[in-house]
Amino acid sequence: MAHKITPRILSGFMELPPHEQLIFNQMKQIIADSYESFGFTELDTPTLELSEILLAKAGGETEKQIYRFNKGDADLCMRFDLTVPLARYVAQHQNELTFPFKRYQIAKVYRGERPQHGRFREFYQADIDIIGSEKLSLAYDAEIPCIIYRIFTKLGLKRFQIHINNRKLLQGFYESLGLAQQTTDILRIIDKTDKIGTENVRLCLQDLGLKETDINAVLSFCAIQGSSENVFSQLKKLSVDNALFSEGLEALEMVVEAMKSLGLPESHFVIDLKITRGLDYYTGTVYETFVPDFPNWGSVCSGGRYENLAEYYTDRKLPGVGISIGLTRFFDLLREKDLLNSLGKTTTTVLVIPMSENEVNQALKIGQELRSEGIKVDVFSTDIKFKNKMAYANKMQIPYVVILGENEVETQTVVLKEMEKQTQHTVPQSKLAPTVRLLCHLRPTAPIIKAF
Amino acid sequence: MAHKITPRILSGFMELPPHEQLIFNQMKQIIADSYESFGFTELDTPTLELSEILLAKAGGETEKQIYRFNKGDADLCMRFDLTVPLARYVAQHQNELTFPFKRYQIAKVYRGERPQHGRFREFYQADIDIIGSEKLSLAYDAEIPCIIYRIFTKLGLKRFQIHINNRKLLQGFYESLGLAQQTTDILRIIDKTDKIGTENVRLCLQDLGLKETDINAVLSFCAIQGSSENVFSQLKKLSVDNALFSEGLEALEMVVEAMKSLGLPESHFVIDLKITRGLDYYTGTVYETFVPDFPNWGSVCSGGRYENLAEYYTDRKLPGVGISIGLTRFFDLLREKDLLNSLGKTTTTVLVIPMSENEVNQALKIGQELRSEGIKVDVFSTDIKFKNKMAYANKMQIPYVVILGENEVETQTVVLKEMEKQTQHTVPQSKLAPTVRLLCHLRPTAPIIKAF
Repeated sequence: MAHKITPRILSGFMELPPHEQLIFNQMKQIIADSYESFGFTELDTPTLELSEILLAKAGGETEKQIYRFNKGDADLCMRFDLTVPLARYVAQHQNELTFPFKRYQIAKVYRGERPQHGRFREFYQADIDIIGSEKLSLAYDAEIPCIIYRIFTKLGLKRFQIHINNRKLLQGFYESLGLAQQTTDILRIIDKTDKIGTENVRLCLQDLGLKETDINAVLSFCAIQGSSENVFSQLKKLSVDNALFSEGLEALEMVVEAMKSLGLPESHFVIDLKITRGLDYYTGTVYETFVPDFPNWGSVCSGGRYENLAEYYTDRKLPGVGISIGLTRFFDLLREKDLLNSLGKTTTTVLVIPMSENEVNQALKIGQELRSEGIKVDVFSTDIKFKNKMAYANKMQIPYVVILGENEVETQTVVLKEMEKQTQHTVPQSKLAPTVRLLCHLRPTAPIIKAF
Repeated sequence: MAHKITPRILSGFMELPPHEQLIFNQMKQIIADSYESFGFTELDTPTLELSEILLAKAGGETEKQIYRFNKGDADLCMRFDLTVPLARYVAQHQNELTFPFKRYQIAKVYRGERPQHGRFREFYQADIDIIGSEKLSLAYDAEIPCIIYRIFTKLGLKRFQIHINNRKLLQGFYESLGLAQQTTDILRIIDKTDKIGTENVRLCLQDLGLKETDINAVLSFCAIQGSSENVFSQLKKLSVDNALFSEGLEALEMVVEAMKSLGLPESHFVIDLKITRGLDYYTGTVYETFVPDFPNWGSVCSGGRYENLAEYYTDRKLPGVGISIGLTRFFDLLREKDLLNSLGKTTTTVLVIPMSENEVNQALKIGQELRSEGIKVDVFSTDIKFKNKMAYANKMQIPYVVILGENEVETQTVVLKEMEKQTQHTVPQSKLAPTVRLLCHLRPTAPIIKAF
């Protein structure tokens, strides 16, 4: 064939080499295991849905980014998040599902936005949601930050902080100042405090037409910080006479108390009256998660409580609380800062090398014996120079090599080489599996994220 | 909101309820583990690729079925298999990869065909391929059926048979009869033997213009069967004087010998001179896997050896051998015959139920203690009637329920209920984790596929 097509992928699509794929998979596994440890079960919705369904709510920027097309007489979209498919699923199967419905989904979503640094057109989201029927305990709001804590801790991240707030508390506070109408605008400005600074927030609030006394009230409200106990006592001192405020405050107190019961250390969460998580969806607890060493990463895991998951598809009231980890983006940020520990290039533990073609079948047999003991084994059976077979073991970073020559076949032994230590010794074939298992057991394992 | 959109998915897309999703996930996990136990590493390619890349080879039916569209100035396709993306990937990264490259990918592919019984537009394929650079040992051809055997055995399937053949042997045989030109047509007819019967094959071969003696030679060749030893001795008795035939026979003998070294029992494979696996791609060993109890399922796992993985993208010779399991279809066939054992509705082991709101925080704490011991726990914290909390445990089929009332909090105990046995006993909170772990350890586990 003369004409060759240049092999390449679309920009904005992440495709990993094997050694990075291993790390990514391990992260995905830790997230999935953490979700399951809290009672979530996996849901796998189609990548393609009817546009009528996916776009029931979307609009503006999201709609422009969507991969949408026709096939036959169907108007189709690739999913742009995992929340809309969840809403559709729960509404569709509400009579078969058991509530509270705790589902997780770790899957790719698609947004055809202009590719730029750190933005992807295909990326993994790792979502959990707990959906109640009519009512849902606030204890679930407390479980969420504990799940976040478990995940990031298991990934090896030491310094991160989960920010928590309550939308009712905010709404009530602004109502009490007579600023109910401006709340949305105020929240949007406040949300930028960390980016633009308090003085610019003051200017923006002036532009909005707020009185000086109100601005001062807003700014001192937002400045409330410290331990949760301290924050609650300051909030109570404000003596805000507003039912929504009281409801939000009580909810936040209950959630924080439950978080403490769940063992979440105060070092890893903080009440932050400035965070809001968008303005039209969340109605109660909201979360953002920051890595203080890298403030420009923004939130790496966010979510909150909402009143009504599926109002576009059903009249049934389905309150819920959930979070999403932008896994592809988080992986990319860690990789960029060289914060990922290597896991090698394969999950294979042992490479069996026959010295010549004469030992191939015996090598295959030994490989199979190791596999039956739960060990992951590769056998290098192509007949090339021994040196090149060893080069494969080195390049693939396989920790143990089993060498089998004429002599070993005769004496029913093998040469077992520990690649990292560069040591080798002769082992009877009958003792090989327990020996390898012991060595594996003794091998130190590093967390995914490097200490920093 | 007045107008509701009817929640639904596109036809031809499989979406599973939680109890089936659990089974599907477990199947996927067994396949992935089996692939990894043989040294394969995962590759995750984008769902969307440039049409120019994906359609380099495709044509005819495949091209008509593809989900293809434009976004901006890009002409895009959703992948319709995992082989073309692999070819693109290996060609693109050939200088960074270590060969032989053993990759697996278990992922969704898309074909917008007319939906019909047992056909899906979005379905999982579970592929492995071993790609060599320039040369690749026949021992890898022997590993493939052993991997198939491991997977189906671990799934609990007892009666299945891996059919193996060699394309060179066939090509050489037909050449020796002077039928080189008609080989493609003959193979297409022979391939249908099991469906249409020998007499109809004879008629078709007559239509093709074959002489009676040739037809008899073809039919007696195809009728060769029995143990591999028996087949080889019959093939040798044919005294075919053709280099390709000899090469194919020698290869098949080497592969079968290596399969035996790998411990594959003769009960689960058979040399079948009738199978061909399509006509233009495979060049050596070919495989199909049948479940004799369900002949109309056709092959549930197929593949073979090819000369050149990526000829559309590179001049480099990349021989390989691989197989694909049509996982969605296989799952659907098993489900239809009611051959799937239930795994319950969740992976959760324990549900902790606080009797009232007063015990919620203590329940959360106990849940967290169990989790730290590796147990999957759900806490029912919404304040509804106790009866309804128990109903949740029943509906979700959670095997153990931990009940915590005022009395238990005071005495630092819990009531541990074994749901299947309908027994319960009081356990000190400090002994709960080891007790649950022991119970889990003693619980019998069923294979995924029921005995039949």
